[in-house]
Amino acid sequence: MTSDSARTAWPRVATQTAHAADRTRPAHEPGEVAGAPARPAPRVRCSAHVGPGDLDRRWQLLRTSAETRLALADAVTLAEAEHYRGHIENLIGTVKVPVGLVGPLRVMGSFARGDYYIPLATTEATLVASFSRGAQLITDGGGCTSVLVNEGIGRSPGFAFTTLDECSRFVAWALAHVTAFKRCAERTTHHGKLIDMRVSIEGNHVYLHFEYLTGDAAGQNMVTLATEAICAYISERCPVRPQYAFLEANLSGDKKASARSFGSVRGKKVTAEVALPGELVRKWLRTTPEQMANYWRMGAMGGILSGTVGAQGQFANGLAALYIACGQDAACVAESAVGVTRFETTPRGDLYATVTLPNLLVGTVGGGTSLPSQRACLDILGLSGPGKARALAEVCGALCLAGELSLVAALCAGSFARAHRALARGRANGDHDEEATYA
Amino acid sequence: MTSDSARTAWPRVATQTAHAADRTRPAHEPGEVAGAPARPAPRVRCSAHVGPGDLDRRWQLLRTSAETRLALADAVTLAEAEHYRGHIENLIGTVKVPVGLVGPLRVMGSFARGDYYIPLATTEATLVASFSRGAQLITDGGGCTSVLVNEGIGRSPGFAFTTLDECSRFVAWALAHVTAFKRCAERTTHHGKLIDMRVSIEGNHVYLHFEYLTGDAAGQNMVTLATEAICAYISERCPVRPQYAFLEANLSGDKKASARSFGSVRGKKVTAEVALPGELVRKWLRTTPEQMANYWRMGAMGGILSGTVGAQGQFANGLAALYIACGQDAACVAESAVGVTRFETTPRGDLYATVTLPNLLVGTVGGGTSLPSQRACLDILGLSGPGKARALAEVCGALCLAGELSLVAALCAGSFARAHRALARGRANGDHDEEATYA
Amino acid sequence: MTSDSARTAWPRVATQTAHAADRTRPAHEPGEVAGAPARPAPRVRCSAHVGPGDLDRRWQLLRTSAETRLALADAVTLAEAEHYRGHIENLIGTVKVPVGLVGPLRVMGSFARGDYYIPLATTEATLVASFSRGAQLITDGGGCTSVLVNEGIGRSPGFAFTTLDECSRFVAWALAHVTAFKRCAERTTHHGKLIDMRVSIEGNHVYLHFEYLTGDAAGQNMVTLATEAICAYISERCPVRPQYAFLEANLSGDKKASARSFGSVRGKKVTAEVALPGELVRKWLRTTPEQMANYWRMGAMGGILSGTVGAQGQFANGLAALYIACGQDAACVAESAVGVTRFETTPRGDLYATVTLPNLLVGTVGGGTSLPSQRACLDILGLSGPGKARALAEVCGALCLAGELSLVAALCAGSFARAHRALARGRANGDHDEEATYA
Amino acid sequence: MTSDSARTAWPRVATQTAHAADRTRPAHEPGEVAGAPARPAPRVRCSAHVGPGDLDRRWQLLRTSAETRLALADAVTLAEAEHYRGHIENLIGTVKVPVGLVGPLRVMGSFARGDYYIPLATTEATLVASFSRGAQLITDGGGCTSVLVNEGIGRSPGFAFTTLDECSRFVAWALAHVTAFKRCAERTTHHGKLIDMRVSIEGNHVYLHFEYLTGDAAGQNMVTLATEAICAYISERCPVRPQYAFLEANLSGDKKASARSFGSVRGKKVTAEVALPGELVRKWLRTTPEQMANYWRMGAMGGILSGTVGAQGQFANGLAALYIACGQDAACVAESAVGVTRFETTPRGDLYATVTLPNLLVGTVGGGTSLPSQRACLDILGLSGPGKARALAEVCGALCLAGELSLVAALCAGSFARAHRALARGRANGDHDEEATYA
Repeated sequence: MTSDSARTAWPRVATQTAHAADRTRPAHEPGEVAGAPARPAPRVRCSAHVGPGDLDRRWQLLRTSAETRLALADAVTLAEAEHYRGHIENLIGTVKVPVGLVGPLRVMGSFARGDYYIPLATTEATLVASFSRGAQLITDGGGCTSVLVNEGIGRSPGFAFTTLDECSRFVAWALAHVTAFKRCAERTTHHGKLIDMRVSIEGNHVYLHFEYLTGDAAGQNMVTLATEAICAYISERCPVRPQYAFLEANLSGDKKASARSFGSVRGKKVTAEVALPGELVRKWLRTTPEQMANYWRMGAMGGILSGTVGAQGQFANGLAALYIACGQDAACVAESAVGVTRFETTPRGDLYATVTLPNLLVGTVGGGTSLPSQRACLDILGLSGPGKARALAEVCGALCLAGELSLVAALCAGSFARAHRALARGRANGDHDEEATYA
Repeated sequence: MTSDSARTAWPRVATQTAHAADRTRPAHEPGEVAGAPARPAPRVRCSAHVGPGDLDRRWQLLRTSAETRLALADAVTLAEAEHYRGHIENLIGTVKVPVGLVGPLRVMGSFARGDYYIPLATTEATLVASFSRGAQLITDGGGCTSVLVNEGIGRSPGFAFTTLDECSRFVAWALAHVTAFKRCAERTTHHGKLIDMRVSIEGNHVYLHFEYLTGDAAGQNMVTLATEAICAYISERCPVRPQYAFLEANLSGDKKASARSFGSVRGKKVTAEVALPGELVRKWLRTTPEQMANYWRMGAMGGILSGTVGAQGQFANGLAALYIACGQDAACVAESAVGVTRFETTPRGDLYATVTLPNLLVGTVGGGTSLPSQRACLDILGLSGPGKARALAEVCGALCLAGELSLVAALCAGSFARAHRALARGRANGDHDEEATYA
Repeated sequence: MTSDSARTAWPRVATQTAHAADRTRPAHEPGEVAGAPARPAPRVRCSAHVGPGDLDRRWQLLRTSAETRLALADAVTLAEAEHYRGHIENLIGTVKVPVGLVGPLRVMGSFARGDYYIPLATTEATLVASFSRGAQLITDGGGCTSVLVNEGIGRSPGFAFTTLDECSRFVAWALAHVTAFKRCAERTTHHGKLIDMRVSIEGNHVYLHFEYLTGDAAGQNMVTLATEAICAYISERCPVRPQYAFLEANLSGDKKASARSFGSVRGKKVTAEVALPGELVRKWLRTTPEQMANYWRMGAMGGILSGTVGAQGQFANGLAALYIACGQDAACVAESAVGVTRFETTPRGDLYATVTLPNLLVGTVGGGTSLPSQRACLDILGLSGPGKARALAEVCGALCLAGELSLVAALCAGSFARAHRALARGRANGDHDEEATYA
Repeated sequence: MTSDSARTAWPRVATQTAHAADRTRPAHEPGEVAGAPARPAPRVRCSAHVGPGDLDRRWQLLRTSAETRLALADAVTLAEAEHYRGHIENLIGTVKVPVGLVGPLRVMGSFARGDYYIPLATTEATLVASFSRGAQLITDGGGCTSVLVNEGIGRSPGFAFTTLDECSRFVAWALAHVTAFKRCAERTTHHGKLIDMRVSIEGNHVYLHFEYLTGDAAGQNMVTLATEAICAYISERCPVRPQYAFLEANLSGDKKASARSFGSVRGKKVTAEVALPGELVRKWLRTTPEQMANYWRMGAMGGILSGTVGAQGQFANGLAALYIACGQDAACVAESAVGVTRFETTPRGDLYATVTLPNLLVGTVGGGTSLPSQRACLDILGLSGPGKARALAEVCGALCLAGELSLVAALCAGSFARAHRALARGRANGDHDEEATYA
């Protein structure tokens, strides 16, 4: 319910209403656009080339100041441009995202074991400070456990038939050809394995969900190519012909938040925990285990009442910063940020804290992981290259645990807003009161 | 997790099961961590300082190679380090995210009007190519409409009482003091306005949702400080005392996907549309309006069956790339990527396409917008500084529309996988077949 | 669907798979249906008549045994058939649902105040016993508070235009005619009031959500007729013509579970609470406040992990039984069963328990409330006729609180399964051990 | 957004606000309840006895009129009271729900094949008329296909440990004992089979989801008793001891709407379809396939925007009416009403309509199915007793398809409100215009 203006005596200046009403006159006449000539601006010719001439041609279109150009196409970037080939089209330069260091964070996982320094890329003040506090608290308490409990990533082609009966025959055929599908898929990749096929029927539509292991790559492209090979096989061999079919029919949860991964996994599923004595909570977080548990109860309920997927403070800050720093696909934050947090007091008065993330999309090979600065971030973690993806996922879980502890503590101790004020001041004078500033 | 091994004759190598079973021996003894000494690695002392000595001290901790250090702390970054002060703590350098150019994209909005060149930061091949195609198609068709239809961003403090009766008295008091709250809030900001207060009662818990306009800033910090001032006023004046209270009790949807914003707004709500003749669809997208509408039907259903919030191909690719390029808070992709897409054929055979995003968190002042390379990206858009945030939101809507058109077309025309293959080849030879490669 | 047959050595006999495979042969040839003649069975001619001849004609179609007919069309039903006119079509008799008595349940609400005996109609053993225990516990503890905190019910007509610009003009017109809409709506009803209109724009679609108060009726029909009058007015007067429009475009949440009502209300929103000393918890529930709070934590998380709307044990048992007994629309259980439960221990060791239901659809006039046995159930509650709907909603809240306490206690004390076993035995011998049997 | 009162000039009379404000004075003093004496009303002593003396004793408590008593405890009910023993406690009589006849509905399923007359119990005018229309249309078109595609129902006990390491060891032990679990479970039941065990780990919590086939019973009690036996086995044998455990930890989706069943099944999953020539659509529904498809598009989007689970007009009307008539557990409407509907036009201009319901909880033995009038309803369907549950599920799917067709057509043809008006008149004069009245 909104409070009514009559009662509260101020106008609602920017409702849907007001904006809509502003537009009672047509926004434009056909063929005419204010601020743009009738003939469109010249188009960027799409190309993967990254040579100096290519960049120059693109900048010509833009007519920006030399300063703007230099901010993106600086000397270092130009010297390294060749690295970006095959990772982007229409390159014009690089955006520089500052990286702050968090740690050490002691992680005791199945794959990640040791004290990690974690590079986080962000432009938001207090973020690194907040994770820093959480990480150091965990380490001071002896470290956290963080365990990969499941993995697998899928593609879900969809097949539209005329009738349910055709669906039945198609499904029967598909079930009889899983071994062939596996062979098709694995011919496209050295590292991927098809591990499951699930079937979903909705009227005359059939969705096949193919689930894969993808080694140390996050694997979205790998499963696309493997599933394409399966679809080609189906298209050539299957006697039941669909009206139409799509390589991905939107059941896989790709880059979207869904409740689906809780029931299985998408990417990597990690759960992390730590038990912290009250003394450490008071020392580092300026609050008590009881108050943290109170927050959890009220916050979990707040999440439920707002229709949130999962129940968490938020995992997006840590994941976005780590994904950007380490050459992960930052768009996957949309799905990876789904998860649950739980805080409670133990019988002996400690704070028990745990996070579970069923949808981490991380890899240590492929994608942006080979670019110079991104690989440097993975190197700082000691998690660059083959054999490291599972450990990276466990570090993500531990990092999110650190973030939840610090964020919720800031809300409990009243330092949430204070941190933002102090950092804003810090912007002016470079000075920084370590203890008061987290969020 | 289960797998159908008997039937399909292959082992499920990495189920939850297997991982769990691997861990039947304790992962660690108390006090002992494999790969880490009993004494933790030295901690990073948290500081906002960005001087060369500060960076050097942090790198000393890391013991990485000189090459790693140089990749982050290159000469340009060191020269510009001062810019990052107040935007990050524990700075060690910058990560360079390549920026590709898309456009022109013709937008006819209430605030955005004209042909936009859009810088997108990503490390994922084909992303820029795909948006490029979508944008040029829209522009070739005369441009799209993209309109801000609502705006407002909130904080939701929570108050825990002993009984419902106390809640009632508290709510009555709060409703009688909205004008005072407004005054408190607006004393903390020049640009923010408190526009609404909503009340939610759950047993002896009360959530107050304060909604604000925040000018050209995305505004999360602004509403935090304003709501803190209100909470301080409540704490001093209200005769009904809560057992405990939190500045944010997790009802506001901050950095989490929720269905909540569809019913109102969080940040900026934009809807964009375009009608495209079949001829243009065939020329640019190699498919037909009918097939695009078929995909939408099957894909929307796929989203529903997977429990996704909203119904879309995905908005995360475009938003993450634009947010990173333009100094927006990339963590907000977790919430901003919620929305709906709709494709249908019109009576005259055109493709009607529309997207609605109720949760765009964008600003043209504050946050990372003042950093050199980020500001350069806003300058390319012509949307840097005061008075431009609403236009930026409309450009986001138009960009997502372009992305959905190209993504879905790739799935319709079978070029989704092909694009990934071609770009992978492109990585080797720098060459690029413009027409075949989008996703 | 998959099963782990290899590992667990048993066949998955009824997977989607198996069923699908069973159907590889067409289920039927066109024009031929096994078990049915080519010519369909004679149709029931639709009619509201309830005379003996009408019933007889319908039974003629059925060719059932005399015993079957008598079970539905018994003497009492035939004598009272006239009462059912206007409540059902094609009447053939009545189904008899046994009613059990629960109480007293002491409720201290804004509208419901006193000790209530509650009639519950169900065929499921242990349900009445379980609610009985919860109600008597609450009453023994001095009663619960149950408060109506909001009310309102809506219809959401949808209007499809050609372009967003038309939407804008339509919305501007609609906003300027709210007073006229109010007049139209209220001409159709003595008891209904239009209290709000909200606007939702999605591309070229506009949803108007009209929200009403409906006095002591649940009100779904009332708001349908009132909104139809508004739509007629729009259709006659509005200069912006939609391509098509629907009286209800599925945004109102009618008879479907949605997260929407948490943010506002649908029907009546009630929150109820009770604080129970540990001693009473042990006496009645055979468990402790701590264990109840432990269950809540684990159960709330279970609900979140399963993608449930809300967080509750379940409200459906109590609501379905009360709705059927009291002539409410039983289909509304689909939406009314959405809500949240919270249990925690208080600082002094009591159990604090609360439920919140934002979507109760109840009335004490209209619908089935005037039928003889249904009205008798309302009379037992003392809540029949005008002026009682809000109290009925508060009783629903209190009843659900009683149900959650007893259900969760059964899970905590291990009596959940025991109750079902004992009652099953009770079926044989009519005997019943009061203390061991709840669920 | 709500429209503001200042602009629209009417007060919001019943907001949360207003109700809350009404309660600024305490609703009650401790120990004192208006309308109730200090000493509570006498309690109903809980018992399964159904003898005349037992009923009499209960009615003594109520002090109602003789008429009220007679409406529930009529002669027929008293004569049949013995039937209700073991199905309810504290019996005081029966509520009579009128039953209307729908049909014939021609179903071509894997188990249901033939022309069905369907008894629906409801007190809501127009419901039977609307389903009647839908059923006769389908039958006129040659019948619909309705197929059981999956089945299985589960219980999810939860186990809380101290650490994740204990969880790992517990899970490893559990996975090694699935055969023993199967033996334990099947010792409790002749008809139930344990077919799957899935594991979900969240921090130090483990949920085991046991999935069963339950023959012709809906099976909730069967799986409770079987899972109890497994839990007893775990409790006796497992070397890893939980802090506490619950027989059901709320992951199974019992009687709550969740997105979970789309990914697998809960109870029975049915999908039904029909293709209808435009001519039949016009004849029976007074609209066109195109308009039905238009509604579907707008209505599906409306459901998504309101955060509904699934996408449907509503399945609750038909399911509640069938469940009550046929002795099913009416509380299960809360979960069974989740599903999806899809309408589209086919290339040849027909209307293709389909529904999918993943969560039907139906049985033809057990629960209320043996009571006289409920069994009579199953007899009318020809689906009473063993061997019929799967066919009943397919009839449910077909019925919901009929309901969606008629409901959406009423919205398309403008007869939705008209039906309610006509039936309201019918209440006065018993007369009924067959063609104009559906909803």
